[in-house]
Amino acid sequence: MTRTAQSDQRSTIDINCDMGEGFGTWTVGDGVDDQILPMVSSVNVAAGFHAGDPLTMSRTVEQAHGLDIGIGVHPGFRDLVGFGRRHIAAAPEELVADVLYQLGALREFLRYHGAPLQHLKLHGALYMHAAADEPFADALTAALQRIDPDLPVLVMAGSTVDVVASAAGQPVVREFYADRHYGDDGRIVFTRDIGALDADAVAAKVLRACQDGTVETVTGGTVPIDFDSVCLHSDTPGALELMTRTRAALDTAGIAVRSFAR
Amino acid sequence: MTRTAQSDQRSTIDINCDMGEGFGTWTVGDGVDDQILPMVSSVNVAAGFHAGDPLTMSRTVEQAHGLDIGIGVHPGFRDLVGFGRRHIAAAPEELVADVLYQLGALREFLRYHGAPLQHLKLHGALYMHAAADEPFADALTAALQRIDPDLPVLVMAGSTVDVVASAAGQPVVREFYADRHYGDDGRIVFTRDIGALDADAVAAKVLRACQDGTVETVTGGTVPIDFDSVCLHSDTPGALELMTRTRAALDTAGIAVRSFAR
Amino acid sequence: MTRTAQSDQRSTIDINCDMGEGFGTWTVGDGVDDQILPMVSSVNVAAGFHAGDPLTMSRTVEQAHGLDIGIGVHPGFRDLVGFGRRHIAAAPEELVADVLYQLGALREFLRYHGAPLQHLKLHGALYMHAAADEPFADALTAALQRIDPDLPVLVMAGSTVDVVASAAGQPVVREFYADRHYGDDGRIVFTRDIGALDADAVAAKVLRACQDGTVETVTGGTVPIDFDSVCLHSDTPGALELMTRTRAALDTAGIAVRSFAR
Amino acid sequence: MTRTAQSDQRSTIDINCDMGEGFGTWTVGDGVDDQILPMVSSVNVAAGFHAGDPLTMSRTVEQAHGLDIGIGVHPGFRDLVGFGRRHIAAAPEELVADVLYQLGALREFLRYHGAPLQHLKLHGALYMHAAADEPFADALTAALQRIDPDLPVLVMAGSTVDVVASAAGQPVVREFYADRHYGDDGRIVFTRDIGALDADAVAAKVLRACQDGTVETVTGGTVPIDFDSVCLHSDTPGALELMTRTRAALDTAGIAVRSFAR
Repeated sequence: MTRTAQSDQRSTIDINCDMGEGFGTWTVGDGVDDQILPMVSSVNVAAGFHAGDPLTMSRTVEQAHGLDIGIGVHPGFRDLVGFGRRHIAAAPEELVADVLYQLGALREFLRYHGAPLQHLKLHGALYMHAAADEPFADALTAALQRIDPDLPVLVMAGSTVDVVASAAGQPVVREFYADRHYGDDGRIVFTRDIGALDADAVAAKVLRACQDGTVETVTGGTVPIDFDSVCLHSDTPGALELMTRTRAALDTAGIAVRSFAR
Repeated sequence: MTRTAQSDQRSTIDINCDMGEGFGTWTVGDGVDDQILPMVSSVNVAAGFHAGDPLTMSRTVEQAHGLDIGIGVHPGFRDLVGFGRRHIAAAPEELVADVLYQLGALREFLRYHGAPLQHLKLHGALYMHAAADEPFADALTAALQRIDPDLPVLVMAGSTVDVVASAAGQPVVREFYADRHYGDDGRIVFTRDIGALDADAVAAKVLRACQDGTVETVTGGTVPIDFDSVCLHSDTPGALELMTRTRAALDTAGIAVRSFAR
Repeated sequence: MTRTAQSDQRSTIDINCDMGEGFGTWTVGDGVDDQILPMVSSVNVAAGFHAGDPLTMSRTVEQAHGLDIGIGVHPGFRDLVGFGRRHIAAAPEELVADVLYQLGALREFLRYHGAPLQHLKLHGALYMHAAADEPFADALTAALQRIDPDLPVLVMAGSTVDVVASAAGQPVVREFYADRHYGDDGRIVFTRDIGALDADAVAAKVLRACQDGTVETVTGGTVPIDFDSVCLHSDTPGALELMTRTRAALDTAGIAVRSFAR
Repeated sequence: MTRTAQSDQRSTIDINCDMGEGFGTWTVGDGVDDQILPMVSSVNVAAGFHAGDPLTMSRTVEQAHGLDIGIGVHPGFRDLVGFGRRHIAAAPEELVADVLYQLGALREFLRYHGAPLQHLKLHGALYMHAAADEPFADALTAALQRIDPDLPVLVMAGSTVDVVASAAGQPVVREFYADRHYGDDGRIVFTRDIGALDADAVAAKVLRACQDGTVETVTGGTVPIDFDSVCLHSDTPGALELMTRTRAALDTAGIAVRSFAR
């Protein structure tokens, strides 16, 4: 990782959000996806394994494309009941096949609605697996190099998949997690329950990250943050308010919300 | 249906067979897929809903492509326990989304292995649904026209999807079912248990169909058969023997087994 | 059907409601199950095939038992994505095995929490299948006679399973559907979208049914209604309000809400 | 572990085998379950999560009960595609609920066929999880103490669940793995592929274990083995031959194959 945090204010930033994470009759979060969607520049569309039935995928793609939002695939572990948040000890080649399967499925709905595939972002425990497990990061990168060497992968800065994919020449897009806390090592502090987040604090945090390239840590320190996209989960409690305030703060500061791909 | 049966002997014929219809550790039929594969010219690859996990799909595609066999997608109802043989009363748009999902998933493995998608053949109860239900046949045809208007669809001659797809200009490939019995109306006689089939009789039946364009019915009559591909199921008991004898009969008669797409 | 509608006002009536119809992280309806639960006397607990993961089942049983509510099993077709609302053409013996499986699973959580199994109510399309299909109604009744001949089955009055089970001596409990419309034949009028229901009208309808044993039909007529339990779906839009008003109307009229089994 | 290996020859020994591990149309192993069944005294019946659909469960119970074989439940991780062989990082309470669900489901088929539940044996990765993870072993034991404190649990001698369950007073039955290799620490040596096993060697190994209470290790040493049941997997390649020779060796030596519960 030789990239340094931005010293100058950005004029644009991408905001990505998970979408289409219901299944059949079930919807996710506060049921405010429709209101959140117009405020983001990129969406990660669930593709059937942790959430997202085919019809929901098709509708989510249609809706996002209608708003000119960048569309990525959001593959997860095959685990509906666990929403893809539980690690499954599977061989790298199995997991890569699972990713290709979901990626291809989404691509067909993109084809149907005339939209391009903008990126890949793994979901939940699979995202964390790629961030830590070299054999999987290697296998995934090799597969992406083969099917789509220009497809950007959304990653945690400094994670294993960031390092491996970057080295192979696969484009990566590093994320800043608006609704997660940071430690002094610049990494996310995982907590089972992130609790209720203050919307103004989240908005200020995102704004500071975009303007100064830093974030305040859980101990009160400051660390530089290297990122090209802000991630805000639509199933975080109060997600709509968080997104609304964040967008307002960015708008006021003159920072346009625009996909990293534009 | 204005097409008439072939009066002259064909010089080539396609044989299509389902492949990759295991799931995880489970395999299908007599476990002779590897031996049957080299004898066919087209395969229908299960794509996850009635059978076919992602890794199996990838391997099946690799194996078939290595043998230069035409590869089609074989989408079914979402019903692992019923192997896609039970009709599910779903809306046409749901089913079309299910088909696109499976089609796209397979396409990704084709992309990975550098193989083209040759055709679409629905599986089991979904095949029969398209053969009889006009709203579904309409919706499916409209979707195919949008994503891939040149993709051939394997169909039962004279079925609803045959009529609808043909009228829309979507290519269709009509099938002759080597391991099913025919009635005097030229349609398949469905029986719960087809019983043990005599391999020589099956071979003779296929040969006659290819040479004369006719088949003997269950009542002993003769009906003309309009087809461009012979279907022989790999999970029919004794499938390997049926395939071996059929191939031998065609070889002896100088009829080459070659995909309809070549 | 020799039973006639009640001519005298009842002093008690059962209200049954579906419960635990989420799956993993997903919940159902308006998310008001916790508020509805204390107002009913019987619950139908989803058992895994159309909804209801094991942990949710355990918690639902614990919660309902803590409120001294009668607990029944609510088996559905194996169809998470369709929420058990799509008919699956399966053999009676398959479906009976599916019902026994779900019934036994729930029974284990009842055992764990020290609660008895009060009743069986099929879900969605499986409920309708039993109401119309004699082979399935026969097979189900035969199985219940074998495992639990005293287990009450919630049914639509006059339906096939009502007739078959009653004839076999299996107890049946007939339902009045508070959130559905009735035709002049005393049967439910199915509509794809029942629309927004007026809570006061629903409350008045239930009260009248309890007091007079009649219901107003969609044509403005009056038909007698034979029932021992009022069904109000927790996923009907506005369910909490419907339940609250209905309970208030019954309370005011001095009709106690009490399980049919007490 | 204060128990010592048997110094005197046993007069009887239990042989347990997994059964009913197909799913829908798929069967497992060499398809010789019907021939293996009469040679064992206990079966572990798959209960739907890693294998075993409801109808298969019912038929397996009926068949085993007809042969007077002891029937146990064989719960696994919810993972059809991985056959329950992949560890899933789930909370103990989730996994215990999964076990109760499967246990209850099987109990209903036992009730239907008039057979008692003899034991519990976890499957695959869940078996290994209980063998190593104390929170899960604790939670499982607590649940069993609550629902069925006399239900024997099949375990690996000296494993965490063996220690925890034994301490709580839950009966345990320790297993000798006929088709696995042992290390000098008396534990199984895991290998991805156990390779082709020599049937006579396996038979001799079981006989020696029953007669001397010892097993030869992979380094050629000898370790004492404490067990009450011999486990022979029906999906081990050549399982029928292994079972046949083992039974013959035991018969010749006058050691009767009888369930530990008789």
